[in-house]
Amino acid sequence: MNNPYETLDILITGGTLLTMEPPGDIVADPVIGIRDGRIIFVEEGGATRGELPEAREVLDASGCLVMPGLVNTHTHLPMVLFRGLADDLPLMRWLNDHIFPAEERFIDRETVYAGTQLAIAEMILSGTTTFCDGYFFESSVARAAVEAGMRGLVAQGFIDFPAPDRQSSAEKATVAESFVENWRGRSPLVTPALICHSPYTCSPETLRSIKAVARRTGVAFLIHLAETREEVRMIRERYGKTPVRHLADLDLLDENTIAAHCIWLDENELDLLAEHKVKVAHVPESNMKLGAGVAPVPAMLSRGIAVGLGTDGCASNNDLDLLGEMRMAAMLHKVFSADPTVMTAGKVVEMATSGGARVLGMEDRIGSVIPGKEADIILVDMKRPHLTPLYNPFSHLVYAASGADVAASIIGGRIVMKDRRLLQLNLAAIMPEVRRIGKQVVQAGFHRPASPFRSDPIRE
Amino acid sequence: MNNPYETLDILITGGTLLTMEPPGDIVADPVIGIRDGRIIFVEEGGATRGELPEAREVLDASGCLVMPGLVNTHTHLPMVLFRGLADDLPLMRWLNDHIFPAEERFIDRETVYAGTQLAIAEMILSGTTTFCDGYFFESSVARAAVEAGMRGLVAQGFIDFPAPDRQSSAEKATVAESFVENWRGRSPLVTPALICHSPYTCSPETLRSIKAVARRTGVAFLIHLAETREEVRMIRERYGKTPVRHLADLDLLDENTIAAHCIWLDENELDLLAEHKVKVAHVPESNMKLGAGVAPVPAMLSRGIAVGLGTDGCASNNDLDLLGEMRMAAMLHKVFSADPTVMTAGKVVEMATSGGARVLGMEDRIGSVIPGKEADIILVDMKRPHLTPLYNPFSHLVYAASGADVAASIIGGRIVMKDRRLLQLNLAAIMPEVRRIGKQVVQAGFHRPASPFRSDPIRE
Repeated sequence: MNNPYETLDILITGGTLLTMEPPGDIVADPVIGIRDGRIIFVEEGGATRGELPEAREVLDASGCLVMPGLVNTHTHLPMVLFRGLADDLPLMRWLNDHIFPAEERFIDRETVYAGTQLAIAEMILSGTTTFCDGYFFESSVARAAVEAGMRGLVAQGFIDFPAPDRQSSAEKATVAESFVENWRGRSPLVTPALICHSPYTCSPETLRSIKAVARRTGVAFLIHLAETREEVRMIRERYGKTPVRHLADLDLLDENTIAAHCIWLDENELDLLAEHKVKVAHVPESNMKLGAGVAPVPAMLSRGIAVGLGTDGCASNNDLDLLGEMRMAAMLHKVFSADPTVMTAGKVVEMATSGGARVLGMEDRIGSVIPGKEADIILVDMKRPHLTPLYNPFSHLVYAASGADVAASIIGGRIVMKDRRLLQLNLAAIMPEVRRIGKQVVQAGFHRPASPFRSDPIRE
Repeated sequence: MNNPYETLDILITGGTLLTMEPPGDIVADPVIGIRDGRIIFVEEGGATRGELPEAREVLDASGCLVMPGLVNTHTHLPMVLFRGLADDLPLMRWLNDHIFPAEERFIDRETVYAGTQLAIAEMILSGTTTFCDGYFFESSVARAAVEAGMRGLVAQGFIDFPAPDRQSSAEKATVAESFVENWRGRSPLVTPALICHSPYTCSPETLRSIKAVARRTGVAFLIHLAETREEVRMIRERYGKTPVRHLADLDLLDENTIAAHCIWLDENELDLLAEHKVKVAHVPESNMKLGAGVAPVPAMLSRGIAVGLGTDGCASNNDLDLLGEMRMAAMLHKVFSADPTVMTAGKVVEMATSGGARVLGMEDRIGSVIPGKEADIILVDMKRPHLTPLYNPFSHLVYAASGADVAASIIGGRIVMKDRRLLQLNLAAIMPEVRRIGKQVVQAGFHRPASPFRSDPIRE
């Protein structure tokens, strides 16, 4: 089956390969063979060998970095619909006057599908090949992913106050179970999961019952955790303990729990996360923009906690560009610790690739470019003025590249983007549909207009 | 001369105009006439009027933001040659083992010219139309700017230890004076200026003599100020006072002094800067990447201090993308002050345009799109997935756009970039020359290789 002499689906030649396994590994002038969705071989020195193996499609990566596709470990894709809806506001006014009412009114099966399509387009164009999403109407997210050829961990969301999908408390476990059963094994691209919003918006009963379904069905359990000081205050008031201790006492922490944010942790909570092998999604831009705080990532890494990078939803970021998030992560921790040696470029690239795969429990399938793994590979074009000269590829990826430098993307052995053109998505249909929803949001009065202003800035 | 019926050089129609004068002003569907390097008229409602005025070239800005070109108030352009040379190192090892030896060996009249050409290409491609540079061999920088049609405040550099241009102490004032005389009035694009590196690398005599030349010739005086805690310690030890007080006592502070960084200031120093009307260049990415600290920008703004944004040189950033710098500025101050309402998107756009013009003393000529000003205008393409939908243009510029979204650029009434193609620079000649210099730097052993690595990642 893995006979290297059989005709390949894709052959990548040239450029410089960052395999990410081991993390600092660099292969000059590689030849990479892909067949049946998988990486068949990775060899060095393409230019010096004679005949190349036969392949249906050859990608010339000269002047490019070849590397694993980026893994976004925390987002809420449909929130692209509210991108820039209301910024620079106090957190509670932002949520209560803009985001929550807009979600209540505009989030449904169809808008989630439309928003996810746009989000997937944006992710593919900026180098992400796997996302981890948590929101409502997640079947629409899964459907959009399969159609677009995008890989995702797709988590149906649960919260105790009325959500757009209006589940009753009694229904939650059933909805969770049937979502998982419905999507498990249906597509190699979609892995179902479950997310409880947070310890302060979900009761202990809700948390326990959803985690029980996750355990029973063997899927990941996601949660926002220790994002704000206000959350810590609330949990202490209600339960007399810190948020991580609260979850530990409810038996929610294990290696299939992925916690996002994790900012306000004491030493004991860091130890609890490490001990229970909880995975962490670090989302620096959202934390910065909302003034939430700085997660103690260097302390997590030194305890061996698996940490990936995420963008969060577009209402609080406001884009899905993981390369930007990588830069932010490196720079934020350097200034916050007054130490330019923390969060090196290589470590950050690892967090965005193999580290992210580990957070999602997918490290056996994706996250590095080695034979046997599924072929999730991107080409980053280094032949650009802002990436010249090139001394160190890790450094350029983190400190100078942006999503717009990604030249091609392969997911599961299928080319989904080439020369900045999307091959599986029709932007000409997706963008007008999202603009139409955006206009309705404006008409409903939920946006915060630029001020002072003469006329509405939204134009087709 | 300004007869609006005369044939125009350029007519811009459509899109949405951010005039930046007043700062929040938005003109829907504008018509902008440009002739003889200047903006002749700005009108609303292009689609509803009948015949358009005659023009040699019409730029269709449909779906774009039209706005003043960005102003980079602090950089060292030729340092693109050392972009990513050595990152994630302690400051002193970075400087002493990599940057200083590389400068000593490779910085001369010709490498400065080549590096500046590449830097100008990168700046134009990312929306910057005016830079403020300080380095050695600045005549080469000025020459490259004039040839490329780029606007710049070009400051010849002075430092007390041996610099690549090897001036003796006695020569400094003479060199300064002849640099200014040589470039004053020679091109509308180049404004000469002088920079002393810092209070810790320049003696009081050097500082006083260069500032005296600046005063006599009426040009701006630049300096790095209060960048690190170590600098504050050194100045206290040597002079028994804080850095700003030290400069105030030397009579260096006035409205023609532009101070970069300004991180470690006490209340008294903030008052001194405000009182003397000193202008400040804020360079958040460099400050973050080097772990230097966070400048008290909200406190500066509340005192009425003029603050612009800068990228710093590419050895410490590592690019010249001001849109990225805008995002960093907004997000850094929100998280640092735990307040999402500080440094709003509108304020940050102002800092990068009209505010930057004020810092450089050019506010009568550039920084906004109003009749009478020189025509420095950019078009930012909003028809992109990551900029959809569009609720608020200021928000998108700061939180979602990147330099790669800039579609066209006009400097002094001349189109220098259109549809991402540079019209005045030949990248096909510039990039190989910079790569050639980069290879020499690697051969000299001054770079920090990616590690572990199998082979040198630099490839043509």
